[in-house]
Amino acid sequence: MEDGAALLTDLYQLTMAEAYLDEGLWDEAVFSLFVRRLPSRRNYLLAAGLEDALRFLEQLRFGAEELDWLASLGRFSDRLLGWLERFRFSGDVDAMPEGTPVFAQEPLLEVRAPLPEAQLVETYLLNQVHLQTLAASKAARVVEAAAGRPVMEFGLRRIHGTDAGLKVARAAYVAGVDSTSNVLAGKLYGIPLSGTMAHSYVQAHDDELDAFRVFTRVYPEATLLVDTYDTLHGVQHAIRLARERGEDFHVRALRLDSGDLLALSRAARDMLDEAGLKQVRLVGSGGLDEDAVAKLVAHGAPLDAFGVGTAMGVSADAPSLDMAYKLVEYAGKERVKLSEGKVLLPGAKQVYRQEDDGVARADVLTRRGDVEEGHPLLRPVMRAGKRLPGASPPLADVRARARREVSRLPPGVRALAPARPPYPVRLGKALERTREALVEAWSAAP
Amino acid sequence: MEDGAALLTDLYQLTMAEAYLDEGLWDEAVFSLFVRRLPSRRNYLLAAGLEDALRFLEQLRFGAEELDWLASLGRFSDRLLGWLERFRFSGDVDAMPEGTPVFAQEPLLEVRAPLPEAQLVETYLLNQVHLQTLAASKAARVVEAAAGRPVMEFGLRRIHGTDAGLKVARAAYVAGVDSTSNVLAGKLYGIPLSGTMAHSYVQAHDDELDAFRVFTRVYPEATLLVDTYDTLHGVQHAIRLARERGEDFHVRALRLDSGDLLALSRAARDMLDEAGLKQVRLVGSGGLDEDAVAKLVAHGAPLDAFGVGTAMGVSADAPSLDMAYKLVEYAGKERVKLSEGKVLLPGAKQVYRQEDDGVARADVLTRRGDVEEGHPLLRPVMRAGKRLPGASPPLADVRARARREVSRLPPGVRALAPARPPYPVRLGKALERTREALVEAWSAAP
Repeated sequence: MEDGAALLTDLYQLTMAEAYLDEGLWDEAVFSLFVRRLPSRRNYLLAAGLEDALRFLEQLRFGAEELDWLASLGRFSDRLLGWLERFRFSGDVDAMPEGTPVFAQEPLLEVRAPLPEAQLVETYLLNQVHLQTLAASKAARVVEAAAGRPVMEFGLRRIHGTDAGLKVARAAYVAGVDSTSNVLAGKLYGIPLSGTMAHSYVQAHDDELDAFRVFTRVYPEATLLVDTYDTLHGVQHAIRLARERGEDFHVRALRLDSGDLLALSRAARDMLDEAGLKQVRLVGSGGLDEDAVAKLVAHGAPLDAFGVGTAMGVSADAPSLDMAYKLVEYAGKERVKLSEGKVLLPGAKQVYRQEDDGVARADVLTRRGDVEEGHPLLRPVMRAGKRLPGASPPLADVRARARREVSRLPPGVRALAPARPPYPVRLGKALERTREALVEAWSAAP
Repeated sequence: MEDGAALLTDLYQLTMAEAYLDEGLWDEAVFSLFVRRLPSRRNYLLAAGLEDALRFLEQLRFGAEELDWLASLGRFSDRLLGWLERFRFSGDVDAMPEGTPVFAQEPLLEVRAPLPEAQLVETYLLNQVHLQTLAASKAARVVEAAAGRPVMEFGLRRIHGTDAGLKVARAAYVAGVDSTSNVLAGKLYGIPLSGTMAHSYVQAHDDELDAFRVFTRVYPEATLLVDTYDTLHGVQHAIRLARERGEDFHVRALRLDSGDLLALSRAARDMLDEAGLKQVRLVGSGGLDEDAVAKLVAHGAPLDAFGVGTAMGVSADAPSLDMAYKLVEYAGKERVKLSEGKVLLPGAKQVYRQEDDGVARADVLTRRGDVEEGHPLLRPVMRAGKRLPGASPPLADVRARARREVSRLPPGVRALAPARPPYPVRLGKALERTREALVEAWSAAP
């Protein structure tokens, strides 16, 4: 856990804890973390962030420095400060494994713990699960668009901050992206690294061909960036270098980073092929998103790989999800909430995914404990504050799971265009009855 | 600097450094960090992030763990690893102070250092200046829309990751937001904290009125959240509590978090006034952005403050800026770049802001050293790797500067709607001539 992460929370989590302690509201609560509605350009989301959520729950501690500072505010009682000092998360978590496709209203995770504990952890859990699910869901679209051609994640410079830089690289890898330029993400997560050269490298030399000559002396298998001045002149320089080097020419690829990538990649491919350089591949980059990649692929652009940065890294077309963490049960009683436009389904839940011949047909959202056809998606991952065996699979397994589970979605749901009709998620009968009864009881109240 | 931040970089920064060392390209380079084009919904940007950029440059070190790991990759020479081990940033920085309004093509900062040093720091500088300028620019719009009513920053749960959670809270405060819910941002930056209660608090009680009773015993001056079940019923509960408590009723405000905030705030205001509770204020929140706030203000909604979260925190309508860090000079020679649609102005620069009667009229972008009418915006902030006195003003001063400088923009530029015409930024004559000459020279090349 990063320094000070215990204070990475909203002030009201602490004031509510104060009130809960004062009132003795210690009973068990269930909170459900879910997305209310999908963004219009998402047919499904890809669950991610559970690993950091569990790590946080296991490691959350309030240290002396944090407690002293909180005390200095004069807002909090000694009782609260003492409780924070002794804080250890003691609850249970059930969750969808990372890499599971998930739909609106379906819990990504549920926390069961004494009310003040379950409340206190809200902000960090949302912050991490929101970001990572957002990023994995966007990256899954780029991977779908690339139709099997490798995708490299290049977004660190414009992703929002350093934490997101790492988490987005990981989430994109889970979603099927092949590598990242983020060196620390490579170290922390074991993601393959990729990188080429920048325009500044070419500019620092008086001549582009000279820049290529020198760089390939250090990195014979480099990918050369050819668009600093004029893309096709850059390709000619690469071809000239190949003639100079003969059998010692080992350049793997040329990167096209601007302009009409369809026309330029075709022209570049023709020039390379005529020069007998069929083995030199072409990489496309520069402001790409899933729509641009899909269009290039549909038109048969001879690009062998894509570098995708900002648009994927900030989820540009949908930079947030309507994700919430809501109390659904307290002291054994189901809880409802009716704020306009935000009806909350009560009680702990389960999701069953039903398949026909290996293709998902529909999900059923039920109360926990009710059994439906299909296989349940939420699994126990933490009990009494401790991760269960299997709760933290290796990243390669998470990535493989995502590939498998996404491949089982109906083609229209995997596609970039809005699925018509959307993937069906229905309520189990008992859940529907519970909800109706609670709404009625409330309407009848004075 | 956070753990491992030295590796928060793109792989190609390291491979280029390897090549520069191999070639002996040690000469002085100037890189310029600027935004190529403003998003369509931004008339100006508010510079932020310099403080973290300077801290990074002063503290950047490669530790034994990082060096061992890099060595283990087998990609890098001992020469490069030795250079990284000894790395200390030795260069100069000139920059616009945080809180300065900035326009397209104007450098937010320029770095002058030996080429490998200036190149190596690119990714982190961009990551931080991009995020913080993005966030301050968005928050400035929300503050403008609120027209003097306080704005509270509530975004941590859906801002992208923990680092952005902190940096956005700081940038929003610079832009004129009044407080944040982010406790750690309060601790690190001294930003005033604010917070109320969550729906879950109300739900955990069997009765809303009872929840209000208990919470105000602990926090008599609380802001009560009234929309858990039905906003106006919630207001009635608050009024009932006022009657019960009489002179001991000290509730400061009610928070309306859903529904038609204009109609509901009017009705709530009437109910409170009729009950003799004129001193109880109303806070609006729930999915607000600058457009929603402006509309509420324009219609005279009796809301005394706004809580704004996700839309501001992720800069939802423009979640990235077209920001770049480009080589403009190397070894005393100006550098140009002509990739399609991305013309780069060569050389180190200065920006002069020209005013009439305290209102900015136009900016002139010049070569560094050329003098124009107006006052220069870029100042020396670091020399030989050390911050200069005054380079890191207290946050309160940065915030005051932003307020002052934004108030000097023409009203149409401060407004939310697109400025017609946009704020004028012209090139100084010498810069224009330099650019033309370089483009011509390149066009004439073989």
